[in-house]
Amino acid sequence: MAFTQDHLLGIEKLGPDDITTLLDLADDYVALNRSDNKHGDALQGLTQVNMFFENSTRTQSSFELAGRRLGADVMNMSMQASSIKKGETLIDTALTLNAMRPDLLVVRHPHSGAVDLLAQKVNCAVLNAGDGRHEHPTQALLDALTIRRAKGRLHRLSIAICGDIAHSRVARSNIILLGKMENRLRLIGPPTLVPSGMEEFGCEVYEDMEDGLRDVDVVMMLRLQKERMDGGFIPSEREYYHRYGLDAEKLAFAKDDAIVMHPGPMNRGVEIDGTIADDINRSVIQEQVEMGVAVRMAAMDLLARNLRARRAAAA
Amino acid sequence: MAFTQDHLLGIEKLGPDDITTLLDLADDYVALNRSDNKHGDALQGLTQVNMFFENSTRTQSSFELAGRRLGADVMNMSMQASSIKKGETLIDTALTLNAMRPDLLVVRHPHSGAVDLLAQKVNCAVLNAGDGRHEHPTQALLDALTIRRAKGRLHRLSIAICGDIAHSRVARSNIILLGKMENRLRLIGPPTLVPSGMEEFGCEVYEDMEDGLRDVDVVMMLRLQKERMDGGFIPSEREYYHRYGLDAEKLAFAKDDAIVMHPGPMNRGVEIDGTIADDINRSVIQEQVEMGVAVRMAAMDLLARNLRARRAAAA
Amino acid sequence: MAFTQDHLLGIEKLGPDDITTLLDLADDYVALNRSDNKHGDALQGLTQVNMFFENSTRTQSSFELAGRRLGADVMNMSMQASSIKKGETLIDTALTLNAMRPDLLVVRHPHSGAVDLLAQKVNCAVLNAGDGRHEHPTQALLDALTIRRAKGRLHRLSIAICGDIAHSRVARSNIILLGKMENRLRLIGPPTLVPSGMEEFGCEVYEDMEDGLRDVDVVMMLRLQKERMDGGFIPSEREYYHRYGLDAEKLAFAKDDAIVMHPGPMNRGVEIDGTIADDINRSVIQEQVEMGVAVRMAAMDLLARNLRARRAAAA
Repeated sequence: MAFTQDHLLGIEKLGPDDITTLLDLADDYVALNRSDNKHGDALQGLTQVNMFFENSTRTQSSFELAGRRLGADVMNMSMQASSIKKGETLIDTALTLNAMRPDLLVVRHPHSGAVDLLAQKVNCAVLNAGDGRHEHPTQALLDALTIRRAKGRLHRLSIAICGDIAHSRVARSNIILLGKMENRLRLIGPPTLVPSGMEEFGCEVYEDMEDGLRDVDVVMMLRLQKERMDGGFIPSEREYYHRYGLDAEKLAFAKDDAIVMHPGPMNRGVEIDGTIADDINRSVIQEQVEMGVAVRMAAMDLLARNLRARRAAAA
Repeated sequence: MAFTQDHLLGIEKLGPDDITTLLDLADDYVALNRSDNKHGDALQGLTQVNMFFENSTRTQSSFELAGRRLGADVMNMSMQASSIKKGETLIDTALTLNAMRPDLLVVRHPHSGAVDLLAQKVNCAVLNAGDGRHEHPTQALLDALTIRRAKGRLHRLSIAICGDIAHSRVARSNIILLGKMENRLRLIGPPTLVPSGMEEFGCEVYEDMEDGLRDVDVVMMLRLQKERMDGGFIPSEREYYHRYGLDAEKLAFAKDDAIVMHPGPMNRGVEIDGTIADDINRSVIQEQVEMGVAVRMAAMDLLARNLRARRAAAA
Repeated sequence: MAFTQDHLLGIEKLGPDDITTLLDLADDYVALNRSDNKHGDALQGLTQVNMFFENSTRTQSSFELAGRRLGADVMNMSMQASSIKKGETLIDTALTLNAMRPDLLVVRHPHSGAVDLLAQKVNCAVLNAGDGRHEHPTQALLDALTIRRAKGRLHRLSIAICGDIAHSRVARSNIILLGKMENRLRLIGPPTLVPSGMEEFGCEVYEDMEDGLRDVDVVMMLRLQKERMDGGFIPSEREYYHRYGLDAEKLAFAKDDAIVMHPGPMNRGVEIDGTIADDINRSVIQEQVEMGVAVRMAAMDLLARNLRARRAAAA
């Protein structure tokens, strides 16, 4: 099977074959990362630049390790201060960077669509590491790999996504991916935090955790994105935990072997009970982080292959 | 031809042969950077340290990529906070770093002369990445390479440098370099932003863009360095653009094939009209950035060769 | 001789053989670092992560260079802002990082004991780069290597540690190490800055520099840790220098060939007279920094060997 993409801008643009190809290769990289010699050469001779217009130690570290382990020359650019302060536009910043001839460009940006725009201006492969409320494709792919390894398959599962869906690009990318792979999706949250009309995307919507979690295979908790709730309703943490925080009582409604996921960083006692987060029989939260590095290695490897093929064809 | 230098502290110390040798090697590195395997080994086994006492994402990134692509072990030290806060002197900081045995030390510092001082205290090759209002030699060299590639030569050209010359180390290094290579230099700007007595350096000085740009081969715009204008006259941006901002009307006075340069980051609508900046038939602004990486690779390669030769001779 | 440790958490846990094995290997790395090809492969294929919860350009740079020169994939994580701001606990941060499968984890943390705690939660080798007032083992090891190279031995020396001993993890690790190697230790400082009961650890305590320095082989000055003096007595710098600052007059009481040490960064004119700090016949302050890189290379090399052996045995 082939990976058909020039960029990884969102799950929206991937076909089921793209997804399966990427996850299969990521499985190989999980093995490499668990070995004593976790250094390959798939990206040898290529330059990877991480441009983070939003802070994210976790995601940036994952991309950085992925690139270094595959032999790329990796450079981090923290974009908060410098260029932006000097009044440069996003496009000028992108063109400047592009002139330095990177091969892989990893971008996180607070504005939805900014990464797509950037991809049109540069000659290299662009990976979206999160743009506004739009997409966070590597998060959805790492979640998919985690589910596939835990459940043995990535289709016809009953999966609940719980909490602040309205402000979450993680939820958005997951809903698209899990839908493409033909799973049954349930969205659970207070009406103010679930976008209306999600039924049209094949999702069942629940306001109550007990109803929504009944017999699901996967419970995917979300982070409360208070930083993105501009002016609207912000629930008290105590009230939120009472109604939507995952505890043993609520989890009991899911299947006995249901797995528990969270994209991190967790607010223990707000979105999830600490004991459940640490229960290695139910929680796959650490596995998600591990799969993150492997999925990013696979994504950059596949994009680099296509980049090299395009360049060879053009020469 | 040989490169005779132990450090790259300023254009002042370079002979025309040094400049030509460096630009010739940089041409090779442009080709490497455009290839699919942009990783060489000229700096393999050597340690490069970037010490930036002033923030500069653009210049630091360029040096960092240059070093990584040549196989150096590269380390960035952001010097704003840490050591300085703890009350350490510049010399102590330098001696401490020197004890870690770097081979190449890239320094940017807000005080003119600080990099020269530092070079006297350490055992490695030092590259000036900008010191106060003094010099910014790699910027002048990348500008020279850009001009040479666009015009086919680097001598007997008519070149206008426009804008805030008084506060610009970029202008200073360029004036020295382009003078050494026997070009005709014109400086254009309001009297408050052009140092007096520049005629003695062989420059023609103009207050008016139309007069100054007449029939030039190269139009080099400068950034308005408001951050360095301490207390003196600061023009309004609107007024400045009207008189000195490069637009189509003013550019029409230059030769038909004149190229337009800017060291970046640009203030569109202040120093330059956006349409001209983006006109790929006239603007070589992106090429300047590309040449920057290649020039820095060449500079570090040549300095490392001399360093190894000196050490071999001393052994 | 063998190195028996899985982690380097403190000098407390090392036997004299561990110390000698490590210093012997560090001697080899001093030679490598002084050569023209200072790049080895002892850590090739391994991932080193530097997690600094306290800023320290000097120590972090030393660990970073050590790792890069041995071929590790090195990643720096500045922990001040990001994850902590998002409310994540230290343990969650550690588990997240652990899931990315690092091999060597270098940690600095403001709380005593935090690094030990962390080491219990992860699968990799952990190196303590300073935790609260507890230990700073690589500093004590680099001081030991400096002394051994200057004096030809590391036992039966008379060594004075002077200044702010109460707040210093450097002093603590040095007292333990130099005691284990059977040296005669003197602690000199105002009663408010010397913990009581140090005589039980075999130290002689002096309030007066002239008495304490008499005939010592090594004078080890400490940094005034004003940032750790919470509420207690803070001496005026002038008064402190008068009584405890090392100047020629006080140094004259030590042996004629006594060496002068300081862990840096120095407050010239507070803890030490600038002329003495710069006197290459007495001061080994720059050597200390150089030994720092070599000692960290040796420590990571030995820990990596043990890690690989443990993994091979488990497989």
